Amino acid sequence: MHANTPALLAALALTSAIAQAAEPAKAAPPNKLSASDVIKASQPSEWRPLDPGNTLYMDLPAGRVVIELSPDFAPRHAANIRTLVKERYFDGLVVLRSHDNYVAQWGDADEKNPRPLGSAQPKLAAEFTVPMSNDKHFVRLPDHDGYAPQVGHSNGFPAGRDPKTKTTWLAHCYGMVGVGRDNDADSGNGTSLYAVNGHAPRHLDRNVTLVGRVVSGMTLLSSLPRGTGPLGFYEKPEQHLPIKSIRLAADVPEAERSRLEVMRTDSASFKAVAESQRNRPGPWAKVPAGYIELCNVTIPVREQK
Amino acid sequence: MHANTPALLAALALTSAIAQAAEPAKAAPPNKLSASDVIKASQPSEWRPLDPGNTLYMDLPAGRVVIELSPDFAPRHAANIRTLVKERYFDGLVVLRSHDNYVAQWGDADEKNPRPLGSAQPKLAAEFTVPMSNDKHFVRLPDHDGYAPQVGHSNGFPAGRDPKTKTTWLAHCYGMVGVGRDNDADSGNGTSLYAVNGHAPRHLDRNVTLVGRVVSGMTLLSSLPRGTGPLGFYEKPEQHLPIKSIRLAADVPEAERSRLEVMRTDSASFKAVAESQRNRPGPWAKVPAGYIELCNVTIPVREQK
Repeated sequence: MHANTPALLAALALTSAIAQAAEPAKAAPPNKLSASDVIKASQPSEWRPLDPGNTLYMDLPAGRVVIELSPDFAPRHAANIRTLVKERYFDGLVVLRSHDNYVAQWGDADEKNPRPLGSAQPKLAAEFTVPMSNDKHFVRLPDHDGYAPQVGHSNGFPAGRDPKTKTTWLAHCYGMVGVGRDNDADSGNGTSLYAVNGHAPRHLDRNVTLVGRVVSGMTLLSSLPRGTGPLGFYEKPEQHLPIKSIRLAADVPEAERSRLEVMRTDSASFKAVAESQRNRPGPWAKVPAGYIELCNVTIPVREQK
Repeated sequence: MHANTPALLAALALTSAIAQAAEPAKAAPPNKLSASDVIKASQPSEWRPLDPGNTLYMDLPAGRVVIELSPDFAPRHAANIRTLVKERYFDGLVVLRSHDNYVAQWGDADEKNPRPLGSAQPKLAAEFTVPMSNDKHFVRLPDHDGYAPQVGHSNGFPAGRDPKTKTTWLAHCYGMVGVGRDNDADSGNGTSLYAVNGHAPRHLDRNVTLVGRVVSGMTLLSSLPRGTGPLGFYEKPEQHLPIKSIRLAADVPEAERSRLEVMRTDSASFKAVAESQRNRPGPWAKVPAGYIELCNVTIPVREQK
């Protein structure tokens, strides 16, 4: 439907790098590949499956959100969340906040009878940054960043780092998952989690422990009705979205697992994807940006072949 | 409800500058104001009402989206859209695309019987950039930007400019409204419009004519179910969201107008809002960013007093 109408053409033309897959590549000049061209030409070795021991499935009424944990950047928080999940802490809890252009957040809405934490820790030392030596996978982007001395990607996650302090940290890009906390830096424990649903609130970097990234199903969180209470909280319990369960992929029968793979962010193809977005090939794009901001770099995810 | 529970405290702590209005200011050190403190202390002269001659009301089933047009940056497109609106071009058309972390788009979905354009122009010369002399209101941010030599705000809009080419352009921040086009730069006419619903796709800057900004009601577009077709188009006509009408505020009886005012972006208070977000006051924030990215600067909007 809509084929060849001006409305559709105008609409199609306003496309994202990945979406350009739908467009003919013939007009692209030689040596200029679109992101979809790069993905098509990539080698199987440039992809990795998700590690079932560090992958969460948040099953909502409308489908599954798949979250990859990052134990390199938040070992304590990732471990505590794995404990919570193994003991089924989140099952039956709710998404209780949908703050426009900021975060969707989930956890325990029952203040009178808070759910017991089981064998999980009630408080954890913050992991706002970790030593650069924790991270063996960082590949730096050449592009300038205002929030960090250096930025790049580490094993599938956007990250910043500071060679002066020899620290590194995950960056608050769209879809990143973090740990809600009180005013004390060490007051978070992973029972209250959020995912960024809008423009990257990078000022939160180094102020919150980020633990992972939504690699699939983000639309289930980003399209929720916005909460009309302060900070985007839902005002009525009936507005809460129930969480059927959160499970570690390793604890789910293999037949029920999502079969996703992520492009390795230390691969040549990933570098080429970033370049295809930094300087987009024609025919639609007229002025190349010559730059890409960290959170605009797509980290390709696909069904395993 | 939820008062004083760990879950709520953790949740509340993850706040945005404006949302911090809900938090006590007592712990903020002297001379460090939150954005809400700045807004409270601002002078009436630091706000301006929307110009009814350049304000659109897009009335959707669930409420009103208010769009401020920018004739300084897109005089031809703003004029054509005013013509379309006056002749009720959009009434009964639809939101036909909801592309996650990119754009919501509206226009004519009927390829067989496209709606006639009336006295509007079918094609317009692109307004990707305009001469810097068009813009008398630019106030530069001190912060570095990767996509433009200089960035700042002009009369309520985020903008970039290049003193070498003496050109300036609107920036694709969250909520900005642009004109869909085909591959030809001059193929847009304002019949197909989109609003940015995610992380700023700044690579579109200088590649599309931006015509304005959603100043109210963005949640009506950002929370739409995502389209599952290519590029986020809805696959079935019944998924389209009908547009009741788009009207120029000046053509709506005064009693039915939205009464909004925008903080003047050349005011001292606006500068202070940006600073409050660049280096957030305590007690929650631990590490000041020392920087703000253009699209993270809040442009305050409120009901007229």
